[in-house]
Amino acid sequence: MQNQTFMRREILQIPQVTRNLLENGMAPVVAAAQQLRQAQPRFLVTTARGSSDHAATYLKYAFELSMGLPVASVGPSVASIFAAPLKLDGAAFLGISQSGQSPDIVSMAKAASDQGAVCVAITNDIMAPLARQCHHSIDIRAGCEFSVAATKTFVSSVVSGLALLAHWQEDKPLLDALHRLPAQMEKATKNHWPELLEAMQNRRSLLVLGRGPGFAISNEAALKFKETCQIHAESYSSAEVLHGPVAVLSQGDVVLALSARDAAEAAINGVADQLAARGGKVFVTSDSAQKAEPLEFVATGHPLTDPLLLIVSFYAFIERLARARGLNPDQPRNLRKVTETV
Amino acid sequence: MQNQTFMRREILQIPQVTRNLLENGMAPVVAAAQQLRQAQPRFLVTTARGSSDHAATYLKYAFELSMGLPVASVGPSVASIFAAPLKLDGAAFLGISQSGQSPDIVSMAKAASDQGAVCVAITNDIMAPLARQCHHSIDIRAGCEFSVAATKTFVSSVVSGLALLAHWQEDKPLLDALHRLPAQMEKATKNHWPELLEAMQNRRSLLVLGRGPGFAISNEAALKFKETCQIHAESYSSAEVLHGPVAVLSQGDVVLALSARDAAEAAINGVADQLAARGGKVFVTSDSAQKAEPLEFVATGHPLTDPLLLIVSFYAFIERLARARGLNPDQPRNLRKVTETV
Repeated sequence: MQNQTFMRREILQIPQVTRNLLENGMAPVVAAAQQLRQAQPRFLVTTARGSSDHAATYLKYAFELSMGLPVASVGPSVASIFAAPLKLDGAAFLGISQSGQSPDIVSMAKAASDQGAVCVAITNDIMAPLARQCHHSIDIRAGCEFSVAATKTFVSSVVSGLALLAHWQEDKPLLDALHRLPAQMEKATKNHWPELLEAMQNRRSLLVLGRGPGFAISNEAALKFKETCQIHAESYSSAEVLHGPVAVLSQGDVVLALSARDAAEAAINGVADQLAARGGKVFVTSDSAQKAEPLEFVATGHPLTDPLLLIVSFYAFIERLARARGLNPDQPRNLRKVTETV
Repeated sequence: MQNQTFMRREILQIPQVTRNLLENGMAPVVAAAQQLRQAQPRFLVTTARGSSDHAATYLKYAFELSMGLPVASVGPSVASIFAAPLKLDGAAFLGISQSGQSPDIVSMAKAASDQGAVCVAITNDIMAPLARQCHHSIDIRAGCEFSVAATKTFVSSVVSGLALLAHWQEDKPLLDALHRLPAQMEKATKNHWPELLEAMQNRRSLLVLGRGPGFAISNEAALKFKETCQIHAESYSSAEVLHGPVAVLSQGDVVLALSARDAAEAAINGVADQLAARGGKVFVTSDSAQKAEPLEFVATGHPLTDPLLLIVSFYAFIERLARARGLNPDQPRNLRKVTETV
């Protein structure tokens, strides 16, 4: 096993990281949830970049759908290069960064705190500057991540945010669903979508579709196709794809539609089937599409955890695809692990 | 001139549409601005799809940078397929749709109104359902648009929103800048970037970069590359591109960096130069980059109108590129004009 990639080892750690987070990492989550419950913010502002921003998108849908709290994703540049102070009285701020280092995210956290927002960091390094700028710091406890492509830190950031939501709302069904995740993740790492691997072996591009929290998973999957396989994957809301992007689809082009067991499943499957009927080679993580080819999935029994599990199988797939294409997924072309943006 | 495309005719109408909107269309803008000034919303929620959503992104940055008002872009699906009621007490709602027809946008406007938000529509059809759900309807007065690819309606939606911001804040410099636009737009339609046309003649993909309001322009440009030229263009924040997407760049790949005369110009030019130094064929709408090739632009004298003018030159370019590739930009593959999404 010593010639496993870091990426593969880190994917296989996902169940254990999640179990450890849920069993031993909840004290700061409960404390933050308590203050948020008292503060009753009218809206939530998130700031993040890269995979962490995909985690923020996932959590945006979760907070909006579950508690009706509107979530504004604010570009870090608003605080950094544009230096525009936002009015955040009555708001809460959520900054997500595995390294906790990027100066623009730290600037935004400082500005949010100065403006009176309750500030929460989700980070893998609670000694880093982001944590010091926030009232509460949730340690995602993912351990060191050596692969440039984030995997376990993405999952652990989402689980941390969902745990915050569950404790804030005292949402027993969601808490129970979180505790079922580690065992379900074990199964999900074993689905690695060989049909999709075969179809993508010699491709240079594809479309990835999702909707709701699954759209965040689609964003994350598209980034991983780029980073690890040099495939120009683009993520689209399955609702938006018919507003223009479909024009780039030719006969035989591959589409990956990420359906979850939630209210959007039928709508995504409908778009997947339409694209398949037009001659696309469409794969879907569902067993209820008509024309698109099904990929294996593990159902979680909760609409806010089900899309997350898709990324675990996706990671298992993409790491294999990179190797099948003769690439080292630990060392993407042109990239460094910590990107510091101003 | 009878064999001009609809798209070309509609691009050439942009200055006149803008002049007419500013001279004759301000009554509903002033009325909406007055109510918003009194209501003092704590945040703004936007809902839109396709090019209209790019207009919403432009306005998000404008409201955040100019008045510090946080803006949450909420997916129409939150109200439609997920049926989750958002808490919008103390908020304002802005729905943007040229047709005013899409059922999911209309559902979101109804939900926002029911939840107590001040609701404003920006639309090209004030008789359509969206306008009927809103307290104020701003008619973008763009006239009929026959090309499937939106051009003048995009520009007119942004100008309407900027006028709303200017009247709300009683911002004389911004109002003056808006009134300078029609003459500047006449010049901008004459820049059509022949260097970029030559570079893109036989390409199948490229990256488009922007930041702040210019990121919205980058999104809109990437969509037009897809719709009218079947080119797989993807838009990235120039800050995000170094977080992963750069892995898909090979030697000689084309990058279009949309710099404007605003606080982000130096940062975008820096990324453009980095990508050029790595062997990319990088074009930039600025004359202060070192390695990237400059494209002509018309400076507007205001950071909130300058990025908008870039799209006028871009439209003039992309319509020519489509024809140079033997395509009819009025009839993109696989698309219809009004997309109704649930």
